Amino acid sequence: MEQKRVYLDNAATTPVKKEVLDAMIPYFTNNYGNPSSIHFFGREVRKPVDEAREKVAKLLGAASNEIYFTAGGSESDNWAIKGAAFKLMNKGKHIITTKIEHHAVLHTCEYLEKEHGFQITYLDVNKDGLVDLDNFKSNLRDDTILVSIMFANNEIGTIQPIREIGQICKDKGIVFHTDAVQAVGNIKIDVKELNIDMLSLSAHKIYGPKGIGALYIKNGVKLDNLIHGGAQERKKRAGTENVPGIIGLGKACEIANDNLESHISKLTNLRERLMNGILNEIPHTIVTGSRESRLPGTASFCFKFIEGEALLLSLDLVGIAGSSGSACTSGSLDPSHVLMALGLTHEIAHGSLRLSLSDFTTEEEVDYVIEKLPPIIDRLRKMSPLYEDFLKGESVNV
Amino acid sequence: MEQKRVYLDNAATTPVKKEVLDAMIPYFTNNYGNPSSIHFFGREVRKPVDEAREKVAKLLGAASNEIYFTAGGSESDNWAIKGAAFKLMNKGKHIITTKIEHHAVLHTCEYLEKEHGFQITYLDVNKDGLVDLDNFKSNLRDDTILVSIMFANNEIGTIQPIREIGQICKDKGIVFHTDAVQAVGNIKIDVKELNIDMLSLSAHKIYGPKGIGALYIKNGVKLDNLIHGGAQERKKRAGTENVPGIIGLGKACEIANDNLESHISKLTNLRERLMNGILNEIPHTIVTGSRESRLPGTASFCFKFIEGEALLLSLDLVGIAGSSGSACTSGSLDPSHVLMALGLTHEIAHGSLRLSLSDFTTEEEVDYVIEKLPPIIDRLRKMSPLYEDFLKGESVNV
Repeated sequence: MEQKRVYLDNAATTPVKKEVLDAMIPYFTNNYGNPSSIHFFGREVRKPVDEAREKVAKLLGAASNEIYFTAGGSESDNWAIKGAAFKLMNKGKHIITTKIEHHAVLHTCEYLEKEHGFQITYLDVNKDGLVDLDNFKSNLRDDTILVSIMFANNEIGTIQPIREIGQICKDKGIVFHTDAVQAVGNIKIDVKELNIDMLSLSAHKIYGPKGIGALYIKNGVKLDNLIHGGAQERKKRAGTENVPGIIGLGKACEIANDNLESHISKLTNLRERLMNGILNEIPHTIVTGSRESRLPGTASFCFKFIEGEALLLSLDLVGIAGSSGSACTSGSLDPSHVLMALGLTHEIAHGSLRLSLSDFTTEEEVDYVIEKLPPIIDRLRKMSPLYEDFLKGESVNV
Repeated sequence: MEQKRVYLDNAATTPVKKEVLDAMIPYFTNNYGNPSSIHFFGREVRKPVDEAREKVAKLLGAASNEIYFTAGGSESDNWAIKGAAFKLMNKGKHIITTKIEHHAVLHTCEYLEKEHGFQITYLDVNKDGLVDLDNFKSNLRDDTILVSIMFANNEIGTIQPIREIGQICKDKGIVFHTDAVQAVGNIKIDVKELNIDMLSLSAHKIYGPKGIGALYIKNGVKLDNLIHGGAQERKKRAGTENVPGIIGLGKACEIANDNLESHISKLTNLRERLMNGILNEIPHTIVTGSRESRLPGTASFCFKFIEGEALLLSLDLVGIAGSSGSACTSGSLDPSHVLMALGLTHEIAHGSLRLSLSDFTTEEEVDYVIEKLPPIIDRLRKMSPLYEDFLKGESVNV
């Protein structure tokens, strides 16, 4: 019998929806022109690319000339941060971000710090993963040129007070970038209402293809290019347009926009079913991240007396695909920087599990997890020396 | 009756081959995992990604751990140049390139010059577009840290003496990068024999998809990352792997490698048929670029007394898709920087036409061009005041 497979790692990547792939297919072998070419083959792909740009803009409440296609979220983050930093470095070299950013933001900031003389403030977050606005304000300096704070966290799903952060930046005239890779398509976003200057998004987190994303840059915000060359993307991002990818991203944004409310409601219900089921069945379980200000489809936990990688492998054996945190950091033995920033101990942070849902997730799949997970946890705990000590009533650092 | 369409702009972009698309398709909707994930869905895509890397490496004579996937040629060029420049800037800030590079190289160098204090030498080329090796050598300085010279030119098809340039760099311990976007798949390349340290390539020029490329980085060559973040590509290029794109690039490289000799021979024959046909039929025609050291599929001309854009539009009306040069610079009214570097006058450079062939090009299509082009040139010349002056025997600057 073939193994049942339940994919609950949609925060790492989603399957491409059939309608998205269908929209892309003609642009590989038939409508293959280069949109910059002036002949028929070029002209016939230019309009679909423009229409895709409008669909992305519509999902964000942006103007279509504020959308720049990139190769994905990491490029968008790098471009936004390095581009603004290099453009504004004569004005100041101080950047504010948080301790729980995606590595595409953190490592970019660390690079600017180490190699180009920038100063970075990494804001603490509270135990729910939220930035404190007063603390944020008190860290602003006269030479602060850029703030980059993620919209929603990829590991724990916590949503930041973006509108308020944006307003503070706006009042001070500081450029505000947000990595919204996890948020786009899962939360109603209006970049104008939320005072966002730059926003990164990625197609493959919202049922579009890998290798394509976008950076929203508010009209008037200036930054250096990350990829210099041809005149594509209004001279701001060189390289032949990834036409099929762009079409796919546009279609994914259109679908997301058309179904946002039902998508949010469906995923929230499934997530609550999953979280409540797990919390009811499994003792010594901590929900990581805010219970309220949370992405609809992201459930995340730490199970005490558990080692996350062993848990993932055990889940994999019964066909359940989850994650200990970010796919981008797998292979690392360090506990997640996000969980550490919440104030969890190493031991607890090591027992993390993220289960992230999608439009394709069913109640039956959620119930399958609620059935399979508790005995696995039980078995693993019985093998844990820490759990043994705990049962003996000995004090352990968890 | 539907318009006959002859696509001769393959240097701008090629159609995706059916075998390539077929290889990609499963990775959108079925095998959609993130290769960094440790569960089944991640594991099942890791091997195909590794195999694709091996196929790219094989085409170049490289080791597979010297291949880094990027979003395309422009990103590869930017990464190679900025990455090496920033890494080595404490050693020196002088870079040598040529006047006929693609804008992904030229504008990157100009950016480093203007914004980061580097000094750039832009080498002249001779009337065939070739770099003079003695001139190159005489421009090397003690603080030269990087040489970036393209393998084959995108507008005129001229192939540079890469082995010799590489040897000179090797002898001096200077990093040598080559933009081989036009050369890969069209010339036999062995990066080891040719003394190449870094090489940029793009899938969509060799019947692969847009939005994916690679940078070959010889083991031991150090450069800063362009895109920081996750641990993908052995921590050198962050971002979730574009799995379908990578599979497509691998397949395209495999096909190119398996058919290189017949591909070169077919395209060379067709190109000669096209060039000879045009030269026989149309007076006052100049072949741009070297006649010998030339890409198999690139035919390029300047027709005196002709304005290139009018020519392209007239060809488009009879279904022939050509280019006046690079698709990346279309929309610009300036004459091509490449043609100017050959020593051509503005007037002659404006009358440029590039016809670039592919595996799909037929003799019948070539003959269609040889039939349709001469009367178009004739009609356009009759409208040209310069041609009128020329016929009257007046001296004109052509």
